[in-house]
Amino acid sequence: MKKAVIFGVGLIGGSFARSLKKAGVFETVVGMGRSQASMQRALELGIIDVIGGDVQQALAGADLVLLAAPVAQTEAILAAIAPHLQPGTVVTDAGSTKSDVVAAARSALAGKVAQFVPGHPIAGRETNGPEAAIDDLYVGKKVVLTALAENSAADVERVAAAWRACGAIIHRLSPEEHDKVFAAVSHLPHLLAYALVDDIARKPHADLLFQYAASGFRDFTRIAGSSPEMWRDISLANQAALLTELDAYMAQLAALRGRLAAGDGAGLEHVYGNAQRARHQWITAIETAEAPQLADKAD
Amino acid sequence: MKKAVIFGVGLIGGSFARSLKKAGVFETVVGMGRSQASMQRALELGIIDVIGGDVQQALAGADLVLLAAPVAQTEAILAAIAPHLQPGTVVTDAGSTKSDVVAAARSALAGKVAQFVPGHPIAGRETNGPEAAIDDLYVGKKVVLTALAENSAADVERVAAAWRACGAIIHRLSPEEHDKVFAAVSHLPHLLAYALVDDIARKPHADLLFQYAASGFRDFTRIAGSSPEMWRDISLANQAALLTELDAYMAQLAALRGRLAAGDGAGLEHVYGNAQRARHQWITAIETAEAPQLADKAD
Repeated sequence: MKKAVIFGVGLIGGSFARSLKKAGVFETVVGMGRSQASMQRALELGIIDVIGGDVQQALAGADLVLLAAPVAQTEAILAAIAPHLQPGTVVTDAGSTKSDVVAAARSALAGKVAQFVPGHPIAGRETNGPEAAIDDLYVGKKVVLTALAENSAADVERVAAAWRACGAIIHRLSPEEHDKVFAAVSHLPHLLAYALVDDIARKPHADLLFQYAASGFRDFTRIAGSSPEMWRDISLANQAALLTELDAYMAQLAALRGRLAAGDGAGLEHVYGNAQRARHQWITAIETAEAPQLADKAD
Repeated sequence: MKKAVIFGVGLIGGSFARSLKKAGVFETVVGMGRSQASMQRALELGIIDVIGGDVQQALAGADLVLLAAPVAQTEAILAAIAPHLQPGTVVTDAGSTKSDVVAAARSALAGKVAQFVPGHPIAGRETNGPEAAIDDLYVGKKVVLTALAENSAADVERVAAAWRACGAIIHRLSPEEHDKVFAAVSHLPHLLAYALVDDIARKPHADLLFQYAASGFRDFTRIAGSSPEMWRDISLANQAALLTELDAYMAQLAALRGRLAAGDGAGLEHVYGNAQRARHQWITAIETAEAPQLADKAD
């Protein structure tokens, strides 16, 4: 492949570019973005070869386009791309939600939607910008592709191959499955962590409380350090699935509250014990899979 | 001081013994416990000098007694100590809740309760047993003393001095203040983490969900790896304060759910942003206080 075009050269897009460069997959990487300062910095850092200006010119002869700008811009970028999208180009994205991205793509790309293969690399961090981009961010990480019925097998494989060249492991889910899964294991925990820290911060004796918060609280609330704008967008983009998970969790809390109020120690221990066992099995499984030599390490 | 007696020589009691030995505070440390194997191991590891058998003999001439056995045993141990407690001995504990411990002490020690100074070292880990004990566990950590009106200033100071010799920083709260603070920043987060993992583990597609859980989920649920028995006891011991915090949190979730269902992006961002700012301020404050050279390190 000769030419990749990347919209947004921060942590996600920049690391994709660096990884592909290291693997020697593309001859030219063109960076596109709203911030000229970020583009200039990405060029200086060697993340991209060219700063793209005109969309038509940037897309000419492109093999692959990655959308890694904030998800709220997805539809506008796709609409800008649509008129200039040539048959030989495949487009993918890196958004944390997929049903909404698919809807945006169907609307913006219309008859060219078959050229769009939605994706989600599971490799977030709390850093951003071109400086945060590294060439091994995706090594051993999962990338979920939520291919459309319209996609050709060859286009899906071209996107998969690019991610594999970055060291990632390809998984396949439908957009709806994807959004349900991540509502449970990512979007809900973020909402819960934000809710707890805000709850404590608004109490009159918040300073006293924070004074005694220790390492358990720190880990529990680490994800509440994430970008509020990004998580607002994700919450709204995955509203239905997130509401379903939140309702299930609130029902779980109501049941636990009943056990606590009734002094039902056995009932509390049953839930706590089930959770501890499940988490231990999960940790053991990922440590065995990802780093066999660390399997005995305490978490 | 000459002689310390420690009930329970696991992480907390064993580390207290090791730290005091390193500081040269006591001539003799006597270990007491239900498991002869643990006592023998503690002796072999040099954590204690003597395995105590008879309570009367163990307490004879003791300057300080620390209760570091599981909290459910507190009242029984205090009742066993009471008849043999001499005027020159001060007793303290390491329990995670304080109002219930104070009630147990008043009941078990009766007229000798003035000799009991309740305490709580904020230095938990997910390891236990004599092997987990280290001589610097308490360096820079907080120890909260919740002194009783009956305590003499000299007795409180004797307990404070022992913890200071371990490198700890002494804080003072009333038992009620202590239990309210830790309900918010420790007990509630544990309950929430257990609730989430149990909720996910009981879903029919739990395996699929755990497969895509990543580092954010791992940190958020780390405290759900703690001992279910210990947290059952803490939940019940601090029932009233924990119910108050849980109710406030459930009201917070209900409000957030309303904003999510209404598509109120500004409302969600307000809560998320307030949480992110509060957490950032807290992290900055503790990093500045605890390790000035790390103040610029990303969390």
